[in-house]
Amino acid sequence: MLDRLEKIVGPANLVKGADLVKWSRDWTGVYTWTPLAVARPGSTDEVAAILRLANDTGTAVVPVSGNTGLAGGTKAEGAIMLSLDRMNRIREVRPAARIAIVEAGVILSSLHEAADTHDLIFPLTFGARGSAMVGGFLSTNAGGSNVLRYGNTRDLCLGLEVVLPTGEVMDLMSELHKDNSGYNLKHLMIGAEGTLGIITAAVLKLAPKPRAYATAMVAAPSLDQALILLNRLQEATGGGVEAFEFMPRSYIEGHLEKFPGAKPPFEAMHDVNILVEVGATAPRDCTPGPDGRVPVSVHLEEVLEGMFEEGMILDAVVAQSHAQRAEMWQRREAAAEIALTRRPIVNNDVAVPLDKVSVFLSRIHDRLTVLDKGAKELTVSHLGDGNVHYTVWPVSQDPAVHDAIMEAVEDVVLDLGGSFSAEHGIGMSKLPSMARRKNKVALAAMRAIKGALDPKGILNPGKVLPG
Amino acid sequence: MLDRLEKIVGPANLVKGADLVKWSRDWTGVYTWTPLAVARPGSTDEVAAILRLANDTGTAVVPVSGNTGLAGGTKAEGAIMLSLDRMNRIREVRPAARIAIVEAGVILSSLHEAADTHDLIFPLTFGARGSAMVGGFLSTNAGGSNVLRYGNTRDLCLGLEVVLPTGEVMDLMSELHKDNSGYNLKHLMIGAEGTLGIITAAVLKLAPKPRAYATAMVAAPSLDQALILLNRLQEATGGGVEAFEFMPRSYIEGHLEKFPGAKPPFEAMHDVNILVEVGATAPRDCTPGPDGRVPVSVHLEEVLEGMFEEGMILDAVVAQSHAQRAEMWQRREAAAEIALTRRPIVNNDVAVPLDKVSVFLSRIHDRLTVLDKGAKELTVSHLGDGNVHYTVWPVSQDPAVHDAIMEAVEDVVLDLGGSFSAEHGIGMSKLPSMARRKNKVALAAMRAIKGALDPKGILNPGKVLPG
Repeated sequence: MLDRLEKIVGPANLVKGADLVKWSRDWTGVYTWTPLAVARPGSTDEVAAILRLANDTGTAVVPVSGNTGLAGGTKAEGAIMLSLDRMNRIREVRPAARIAIVEAGVILSSLHEAADTHDLIFPLTFGARGSAMVGGFLSTNAGGSNVLRYGNTRDLCLGLEVVLPTGEVMDLMSELHKDNSGYNLKHLMIGAEGTLGIITAAVLKLAPKPRAYATAMVAAPSLDQALILLNRLQEATGGGVEAFEFMPRSYIEGHLEKFPGAKPPFEAMHDVNILVEVGATAPRDCTPGPDGRVPVSVHLEEVLEGMFEEGMILDAVVAQSHAQRAEMWQRREAAAEIALTRRPIVNNDVAVPLDKVSVFLSRIHDRLTVLDKGAKELTVSHLGDGNVHYTVWPVSQDPAVHDAIMEAVEDVVLDLGGSFSAEHGIGMSKLPSMARRKNKVALAAMRAIKGALDPKGILNPGKVLPG
Repeated sequence: MLDRLEKIVGPANLVKGADLVKWSRDWTGVYTWTPLAVARPGSTDEVAAILRLANDTGTAVVPVSGNTGLAGGTKAEGAIMLSLDRMNRIREVRPAARIAIVEAGVILSSLHEAADTHDLIFPLTFGARGSAMVGGFLSTNAGGSNVLRYGNTRDLCLGLEVVLPTGEVMDLMSELHKDNSGYNLKHLMIGAEGTLGIITAAVLKLAPKPRAYATAMVAAPSLDQALILLNRLQEATGGGVEAFEFMPRSYIEGHLEKFPGAKPPFEAMHDVNILVEVGATAPRDCTPGPDGRVPVSVHLEEVLEGMFEEGMILDAVVAQSHAQRAEMWQRREAAAEIALTRRPIVNNDVAVPLDKVSVFLSRIHDRLTVLDKGAKELTVSHLGDGNVHYTVWPVSQDPAVHDAIMEAVEDVVLDLGGSFSAEHGIGMSKLPSMARRKNKVALAAMRAIKGALDPKGILNPGKVLPG
């Protein structure tokens, strides 16, 4: 097998033996494994040849991208790992059409830079943007901080090239905004976590770069009042809110503990801290007035001042420089690092309707206290989407208790009409939740589709679909 | 079979015998058939019972909604037609969450009215909105005039309830904006034209109702200059253009011929006539100034005046009243009626990159002249999406010539990186195009999925997938 793989990708591009160490764990360190080898193909044809070989021999193939996932989606015990990191060409940026045509190994931050040179943005962003790659963020339908304004990853993708488990290449590289020619296989592949096909290239949408941002940290008396702030800002700006991120007091404390040089957002500590950002592209919102202030900042400040006078917010700091804005974002984007400082960890990435986030947090807190008195919680939330990252550091070392905590989260979430997996996907860590909670008819349909497209079950086996 | 169907839906809700006449053709009149019966279930349970019966007996089931499709998707020779017109309840409108929960038989214009009472809109709109129903516009992923601003139908749907061919009910009625729990079955069902499942209910997104519209008819020297107008308006309004519709001179002439009482858009006739509409929700764009003018209209007028002075537009009329706006829209929405005035007809609904629309039109005109000298063309285009409705009235009565015209359209479109089916879907009329032009690997994947979910092939057989 190794010889045949070497023949396809060349000896320099097949990692094996002792060199596999750095490919044998994910970023969280929760999952470890020993792969058969890591193949680093340089072209779609080589990907196709590898899949034909794997399909013929019934060998498992696990695609790995930036390996920054949080759900164990890259565990590859005894499998061929497929890394597309060499396929990292930005083939084309067409500013007039507002598209980028990219290979699957392009790193998200490289794409950001390429778009920026044309005064455009690729809106998807999250903490791991320096490592995450196109193939990975499409396969997981990544979320992040700008979904409120620009949608999930699937909303930013016009076309795909996918190698099916049989090694056939499916060309769906459309640049069109309307295309009703049969079943939507693009959306089926996006978010399938590499279990239905290997994404090798994509046509991605770009958006006009906001010419001005207004960014602030706001302390609110409650989440309900924070949501009033969100609605008033959306109204004042015609839907210009790019991010609306909630960090409770415990998160601010956790951040200061992990990064001793960091500053707290306000002089006093508050329970509800919001990072809000408004972006503006129209000249009338971006051109500084006679007082040097940019209209989009004036809109934000006016809404904040009005709510402060009404007692609906407690404090607010509007960023006055790029450095201040960056500091606000660094605090928010340190979330995963803070969460991973302790072990064991019960990670939950859930979504509920926006106005149910506070109910979720209070109910799950009560349930947690019963299950594992002394367990600590770390919460950070894309509040504008109702997406809550709820991490528990249990005192108990008993896996049964950890699973009971996860079940309690599922109970509360589903009771509120939510989802047990918002943006991190299923991988391996949410397989029990899928088995317990996903609609049974939907699960059976997913299995039927998996069986139809990957009859030998070679692609990322043991992920997404519970056994 | 009829007895068993009658037992499920009740005798009053089973149409048979002579009463089938009005169910035996589609709106175009191009397709006619004789169904076995029309069942009008009153609940999801009844839909499920009908599909179980059909699956057990291997009987074809064809869903019919408003029956306003243009591609023959409802042809139902000898099949049970399934009409969900009795399931027409708007279960809930939740203005704070900006969603509507609706049954599949709700008519689009009823949904518009229900949203309007909450100062919201359901953005999807097209000429047939008085007949088209939820189940149909989701199953066909309908497009229309506002896609530029709000996306296709699939972008407006958060959740679905679907009865699978086996009669099992798949509950995907999520209200969430983030939900990564397995394969995206919602997007697979949307646009599948009723071949994979019967949509019985949906959670739909609503949007804030623009408080002000600025609408105009504009004559431009060329399509290239019209696109400059689009870009300048998007820039000036921060992306506020809701519709950008192109009608060539021949369309204006066709409209006046069909509706003798109608008025031309301008005193002179022009080659490139654009209906443009900008919507605004933010108070700063909607509040009349001291001169009584609304800022969004001022933005539009300023852009038009600037381009007029540069010689980049030839004439423009800005609507000064609701009646004037309605008149502009009536002209545009008469397209299907105008197209169906003559027979035979070769209907094409294609998409190309925006800046290729004029190339498409000139190339296909040349090809048409060779194939059928004397054939007439009727073009109308959602120019902002690159979507062109290109109708040919051939002189020749020979089906082979009609097919050659369709092939020529496909040639030109695919050469320009376009799609042979933009928003009308495949139905039966585009089966030859699917067979000839769709990526073979994608077609095989679609067939595998169809086989996995509908092994007996009972749902809308003979549609979408060429035999």
